[in-house]
Amino acid sequence: MAEQRTEAIEKLKGFLEGIDFTMLTTISEGKLHSRPMSTQEMDENGDLWFFTQDDSRKIEEIEADNRINAAYSDPDGNTFVSVFGRADVVKDRAKIEELWSPIYKAWFPEGLDDPHICLLRVHVEDAEYWDAPNSKIVQIAGFVKALVTGTEADMGDHGTVKVNPAGA
Amino acid sequence: MAEQRTEAIEKLKGFLEGIDFTMLTTISEGKLHSRPMSTQEMDENGDLWFFTQDDSRKIEEIEADNRINAAYSDPDGNTFVSVFGRADVVKDRAKIEELWSPIYKAWFPEGLDDPHICLLRVHVEDAEYWDAPNSKIVQIAGFVKALVTGTEADMGDHGTVKVNPAGA
Repeated sequence: MAEQRTEAIEKLKGFLEGIDFTMLTTISEGKLHSRPMSTQEMDENGDLWFFTQDDSRKIEEIEADNRINAAYSDPDGNTFVSVFGRADVVKDRAKIEELWSPIYKAWFPEGLDDPHICLLRVHVEDAEYWDAPNSKIVQIAGFVKALVTGTEADMGDHGTVKVNPAGA
Repeated sequence: MAEQRTEAIEKLKGFLEGIDFTMLTTISEGKLHSRPMSTQEMDENGDLWFFTQDDSRKIEEIEADNRINAAYSDPDGNTFVSVFGRADVVKDRAKIEELWSPIYKAWFPEGLDDPHICLLRVHVEDAEYWDAPNSKIVQIAGFVKALVTGTEADMGDHGTVKVNPAGA
């Protein structure tokens, strides 16, 4: 079981590598809203990490309802990933330092001492991916079919990974 | 009011032009799932149109809960758009013919007579966009700040458009 979980995380990591931005969808006042976020890392537990500010609107939304979808799109590479998970706000100084880079000072002028700097952690439950190797035209045809109609890919690679299934 | 609505639709259309695929998020069994979909058009009412099959899982989900988010990402162009709307299934033959292209025969082998061919229409309520002109490095810096932290862009263009506000 632990091995399967590690495999699922490694598979997912492979897909997300090179797709920096995700559209993170939250539920707010009965609506679904998304915004671009830059992914800092997927850690060894399969958790996704983002920098944010504790006074931002999405933090309010997440505190009211922690369910999120993180959608990763790489149209050039024909890779799309849907991640479902639950988000929480983390103010762990050690983790902030671990992910910190001096270039972030541009938007946190006070750096690590910014009173609002915090991390958003997404505890991933499951994910679904659509992936087509670019080299095979037949697979792309099957994949395009999947994309146009939103069905499963006929010949491209499509599947789900359970990282932390609810109730497990 | 009608003029403002037309302007909102034109603005949104401009952003979506050239971003074929969207990640369409639905709510299902208490989770948020997304999948890549190819956008056929945004019509003069601001409705989004997609081809799909009436026996697909997302149609089931939409019939149970019609709220969706359509997330458009163009990382190369620094453009990201979040669209909130309500989806329904449309089996209007005239509209299907209007959007039909012979290349779609690859995935609807029976063409227009495919018993499952249908359209998904998204009635857009509001949208939010993040857009940075590529030519101005300062604006990009501000924009990257917005992206990393999920806050509003400092110098890039960010805003909301109300297409069909609920209750209006």
